[in-house]
Amino acid sequence: MSGPAIMLQNRRFLLIRRPSGLPVAEDFELVTEVVAPLSEGQFLVSNQYASLDPAIRGWMDDAPSYLPPIKLGDPVRAPTIGTVIQSRHADFPVGKWISGMNAIEDYSVCTSSAFTRLIDPDALPCVTNYLSVIGAKGLTAYFALLEIGRPRAGETVLVSGAAGAVGSLVGQIAKLKGCRTIGIAGGPGKCTRLLRDYGYDGAIDYKGKSCDELAAAIRTLAPEGVDLVFENVGGDILDAGLLALKTKGRVVLCGLISQYNSKPRPINNLWQLIVMGARIEGFILTDFVARFGEAIPELTSWLKSGLLRVDEHIEEGIENALPAFLRLFDGSNEGKMILKIAT
Amino acid sequence: MSGPAIMLQNRRFLLIRRPSGLPVAEDFELVTEVVAPLSEGQFLVSNQYASLDPAIRGWMDDAPSYLPPIKLGDPVRAPTIGTVIQSRHADFPVGKWISGMNAIEDYSVCTSSAFTRLIDPDALPCVTNYLSVIGAKGLTAYFALLEIGRPRAGETVLVSGAAGAVGSLVGQIAKLKGCRTIGIAGGPGKCTRLLRDYGYDGAIDYKGKSCDELAAAIRTLAPEGVDLVFENVGGDILDAGLLALKTKGRVVLCGLISQYNSKPRPINNLWQLIVMGARIEGFILTDFVARFGEAIPELTSWLKSGLLRVDEHIEEGIENALPAFLRLFDGSNEGKMILKIAT
Repeated sequence: MSGPAIMLQNRRFLLIRRPSGLPVAEDFELVTEVVAPLSEGQFLVSNQYASLDPAIRGWMDDAPSYLPPIKLGDPVRAPTIGTVIQSRHADFPVGKWISGMNAIEDYSVCTSSAFTRLIDPDALPCVTNYLSVIGAKGLTAYFALLEIGRPRAGETVLVSGAAGAVGSLVGQIAKLKGCRTIGIAGGPGKCTRLLRDYGYDGAIDYKGKSCDELAAAIRTLAPEGVDLVFENVGGDILDAGLLALKTKGRVVLCGLISQYNSKPRPINNLWQLIVMGARIEGFILTDFVARFGEAIPELTSWLKSGLLRVDEHIEEGIENALPAFLRLFDGSNEGKMILKIAT
Repeated sequence: MSGPAIMLQNRRFLLIRRPSGLPVAEDFELVTEVVAPLSEGQFLVSNQYASLDPAIRGWMDDAPSYLPPIKLGDPVRAPTIGTVIQSRHADFPVGKWISGMNAIEDYSVCTSSAFTRLIDPDALPCVTNYLSVIGAKGLTAYFALLEIGRPRAGETVLVSGAAGAVGSLVGQIAKLKGCRTIGIAGGPGKCTRLLRDYGYDGAIDYKGKSCDELAAAIRTLAPEGVDLVFENVGGDILDAGLLALKTKGRVVLCGLISQYNSKPRPINNLWQLIVMGARIEGFILTDFVARFGEAIPELTSWLKSGLLRVDEHIEEGIENALPAFLRLFDGSNEGKMILKIAT
């Protein structure tokens, strides 16, 4: 089962310094190393595409989280899809495609893990869909919205980061469940996409708006208030969402991208939780690993029947890993950010 | 059934101006008015004792909440206990004791409501227990802890405002349910009471401590973290509690007394909810009105068997309503704050 011991040149995008604020070039080094021979139980994956996610910024800090920090000198951890090119593991034979939690590098030495699974590249419109709607983003939208938020038909759902990889799916899934959706995004172009591409019933451009102005804009679109806030951003946007909550409202805290490169943004309106008997709950995708099999068929069926629109923004070349990653934080990506590694 | 139309002189503690920050004497006026004759369905209660609660401060603001704001010119709303002295309602005959949401005044004209019930003054060690452990405070501690917090035996529960009317009961009920309890209070005297009177396993004096120092003090007493935070205070104390949360931790947001007389205190550590998959949920007692009958027998049985210690701080005289109320905010009360109205 093992392949021949070819001397493979592996380009690896290493974290060599913990970023302070927004990551800069000096925090990383692109090196070329030779892949070591496999041990029993290992298999070698040629990474074709890597998913660039805001969560990766958190793993660059030396802080406890649901996954350990990336070690200095290690390649930057990322979900990837690729092909098995050597194998000493019977379940992952050469030639198969897999998705897994690997790293930004040409080749990853893998073992079987909760994150690693075989995928069929022909089962979806694009193989990269395994990094978006049939990957962590789609699973996050699915479980965070449906299991933490528990939307009911007829409810009003407010989504921040609404044009983003998760937000665009949350808005569409909420519509499929019979909800009214209001999206918050940055700039008129994204707001147009919210209404045109993702079926939002209302769109709010947060740029240039204070918390009070955001709250007024939400009130205009939802005079009765909001049942469910799906929060990807934090700061003033979350504070305005809290002000909009109805009695027994829920906030799914999925992300806080406004502060991943800075100190925490203070939240002032938690008192609304007492006034409204409302709750905020944080979401961790890894809590739902055992249930991915419930979500994937439904997401796949929505995708293939055209009920779910997925936008992917693919940048090419491992040498472009950093500028591609930074697009997540300046909002210049248009869809799920993916890096094509294989040349 | 109606009593004679005696001309009763009713001293009433009116709200005449909405307080800015801490209430001052000019916000109120003590007037004497004649009680009007009763209409059919009404009954007149001679208020013996009023409960002074932090929530009353919220009702003085012109802000939407679970109860409407107190109208300017109306007496200050408060839970009271007293005796029926005139009645045109068959269910509330003259001579009976009732508890209800009335006001700080000698006599309240009452109708039947969700808050009004007959009480037996001889059923408890002291009739004032109906305003503490068998009143809103005990019911709050019971339902907020058991229904929102859902503590399990062996878990660690962190309580802020731990020597207060609610906190002291929460700590004791958590112990009855097999939890380990850590209380936060202001000053060495209160910390002594936490350990000696309320059975806390650990006590932290928050005075003079920064958020980081509070977090370190919690970590010393709970190196593995905290399963449940019962929050009565807000600000740095809540931020430190968030830092202490274990995976899947819960925060019961019961009160935010640190900010009832000021602008909201910012919270910086909501990101912990994502890291830990944790939740914060606000508590409103009125959500549980239909279930008070479940709690009262259990609280009564704990009280009468000595399993629950209740401290009441009784000040005398309607003319002392304001200084007695302000003790809640400078922390100089020792137990549930109660005003004896009847002279």
